[in-house]
Amino acid sequence: MKQSKLFTKARREAPADEVSKNAQLLIRAGYVHKEMAGVYDFLPLGLKTLNNVIGIIREEMNAIGGEEVLLSSLQDPELWKKTKRWGDEDVDVWFKTKLKNDAELGLGFTHEEPITRLMRDHIASYKDLPRYAYQFQNKFRNETRAKSGIMRSREFIMKDLYSFNRDEAQFKEFYEQAAEAYLRVFTRAGIGGQTYRTFASGGSFSKFSDEFQTVCEAGEDLIYIHEGKKIAINEEVCTDDVLADLGIKKEELRQEKSIEVGNIFPLGTKYSAALGLTFKNADGKDEPVWMGSYGIGPARLMGTIVELLSDERGIVWPASVAPFAVHVVSLGKPGDEVAALADGLYAELSEKGVAVLYDDRDLRPGEKFAESDLLGMPARVVVGKDAVATDTFEVVDRKTGTVEKVARAALVARFS
Amino acid sequence: MKQSKLFTKARREAPADEVSKNAQLLIRAGYVHKEMAGVYDFLPLGLKTLNNVIGIIREEMNAIGGEEVLLSSLQDPELWKKTKRWGDEDVDVWFKTKLKNDAELGLGFTHEEPITRLMRDHIASYKDLPRYAYQFQNKFRNETRAKSGIMRSREFIMKDLYSFNRDEAQFKEFYEQAAEAYLRVFTRAGIGGQTYRTFASGGSFSKFSDEFQTVCEAGEDLIYIHEGKKIAINEEVCTDDVLADLGIKKEELRQEKSIEVGNIFPLGTKYSAALGLTFKNADGKDEPVWMGSYGIGPARLMGTIVELLSDERGIVWPASVAPFAVHVVSLGKPGDEVAALADGLYAELSEKGVAVLYDDRDLRPGEKFAESDLLGMPARVVVGKDAVATDTFEVVDRKTGTVEKVARAALVARFS
Repeated sequence: MKQSKLFTKARREAPADEVSKNAQLLIRAGYVHKEMAGVYDFLPLGLKTLNNVIGIIREEMNAIGGEEVLLSSLQDPELWKKTKRWGDEDVDVWFKTKLKNDAELGLGFTHEEPITRLMRDHIASYKDLPRYAYQFQNKFRNETRAKSGIMRSREFIMKDLYSFNRDEAQFKEFYEQAAEAYLRVFTRAGIGGQTYRTFASGGSFSKFSDEFQTVCEAGEDLIYIHEGKKIAINEEVCTDDVLADLGIKKEELRQEKSIEVGNIFPLGTKYSAALGLTFKNADGKDEPVWMGSYGIGPARLMGTIVELLSDERGIVWPASVAPFAVHVVSLGKPGDEVAALADGLYAELSEKGVAVLYDDRDLRPGEKFAESDLLGMPARVVVGKDAVATDTFEVVDRKTGTVEKVARAALVARFS
Repeated sequence: MKQSKLFTKARREAPADEVSKNAQLLIRAGYVHKEMAGVYDFLPLGLKTLNNVIGIIREEMNAIGGEEVLLSSLQDPELWKKTKRWGDEDVDVWFKTKLKNDAELGLGFTHEEPITRLMRDHIASYKDLPRYAYQFQNKFRNETRAKSGIMRSREFIMKDLYSFNRDEAQFKEFYEQAAEAYLRVFTRAGIGGQTYRTFASGGSFSKFSDEFQTVCEAGEDLIYIHEGKKIAINEEVCTDDVLADLGIKKEELRQEKSIEVGNIFPLGTKYSAALGLTFKNADGKDEPVWMGSYGIGPARLMGTIVELLSDERGIVWPASVAPFAVHVVSLGKPGDEVAALADGLYAELSEKGVAVLYDDRDLRPGEKFAESDLLGMPARVVVGKDAVATDTFEVVDRKTGTVEKVARAALVARFS
């Protein structure tokens, strides 16, 4: 895409009230816009990045048998009363609203209840199990504080998958598959090395749940890492009893601040029993379905990448999520031979299917380079006067800063 | 996809309280689930269909220079007070909610205000114009009645595009391009023949706006069609004065019920003036930006297709929006040679990239055919005993009912 056509402009300053690094950088680079505290819009570059993150998650959820759905935000109170999750004293993040006839409705902060009710229409027999449904859907959470940028906002797209199994064994098998899929997501998104499967508190049906925590100074959580086992324990459950259970000694652990980038949760038959989601087993007897829930927030993941990988010059995107693979920066003036060369290179790369952002604007080189660093595409290709003579281009690696001279054919081959 | 893996099941009856044909058929076929009046979930087949509709619209919006964004649902009252659209006496479809500190928020029913404010950060000079931004975003509208299924729901994804131009001439040029793009969308979605560009009432800046109305008995609108000119006039503006303006005689018109599948609206400088979106013209003077808004509801479009094209046996999808191109129906029993042949055909078509729904379930043929008709894929391929001997398959056209015998190679070639 030509940058002269991109409607967003980078800016020197983030809003004065924005304290998180991720939002400061993403706003300055024109990826997101702050509507109000904890509420962000995604602009063209930000939406492309978010969609790349979503694409990775979708592939991994499909690979473990997930079927994609899209449930509503508006929620029926009667349903949530049955699981005792309607009252503000039970759930403190509801946004509630009203119909014209004054009947209350909620804005979904999660979807165990509606998906459980919905599945009653489609699950009758053990032959109908297992089933795995997921969505990318906008959650609303009435957070008291929202100071972590796009990592904790009052509305955000969540990937929530729900599993429906006939017994604990079938459930546990899937649960481990989901955990492996989660680790693949974080690895593909470029934060695998810093992300740990983490023991966290369970619910009524399980001693533990699993969180996926990424070590980061901006994190709101505290975890204890066992590097040898590549696992961690959330501070809230890191007791002597638990350590003994896991066969881990306190002195083998190191404490780190971390960001929860995903969680998976055994639900047992809590929701299926409360809402009547049963199936006929092989003997024709009714049993409640075994359930689990599995969440990843794509925007939180995107924000975590910014917190973790950016440097003093700006954002550094991994290739897997970058909105464009290459940033072609022309140092030409409109109509000159440098601009013509850059136009041609942009056209050639685009024809080969390479996602190129092309800075064709008439600005000073220093300004262009600073903005290119801020925007954070993995590679920058500089088209200057010397390139006209040599047909060889300066390629700068955003992460390492390495500069190479690459001939045109090799350049096109590298990115195609 | 194997139907044995699809979690949804077709059913004989729709919910008793569902009066609209589109929702009755879509619920029976397992495309959507009704959460409550005017609130629907999209299940796997429904979401695939919706995404196909969205894909068509996205291509056409990109083709006229649109840049995709995603704005928030939560809305800041201060912004909407400036345009006098916050009060319930001014706008009667707001859903409102509250933060923990009791501050009111709205749930966006449209997005002129936030996108106008946002553009102030990115438009400064006439060189920054034109700009076109659009989104597929969930709108909330507190409708008193919601009896039209997915054609009028209380939350729904809308494609809303906003245009930003430097003067009326530049605006009008784009407005006509957008109108042409809209007609291409409806043609590609299979309802072009029944859809008319329709004069409707304008706002403060224009005598008319344009609606796109599809002739259909289930419609809530009344239009007067001039078949020769392939245009229509909404009842609300079909006065003698307007007819005189358009050079049309009353007796040339026929009245029809219709569904509004899209609208485009000149906004002039109403929002830009109220919210301070100005640009410096070539003389360095500040002028307000000229705006327009352009809406299509993908779910309403999907519902309209169902209302218009379905028959007494069920849904009839045009190929462009069908969740699968082909429905392969095996009449075999698990493990027999008919099932093996069907498995092989499914694998071969899938490898060629054909979107195939494969009914591999062990059910009676009559039940399978009835469900296949209800689900509405454009073509059904029947794999029965005769196919084992001949490697020739019965292909049934869902729309016309035409039955052909097609040899395997020709079949694969036809759908690849």
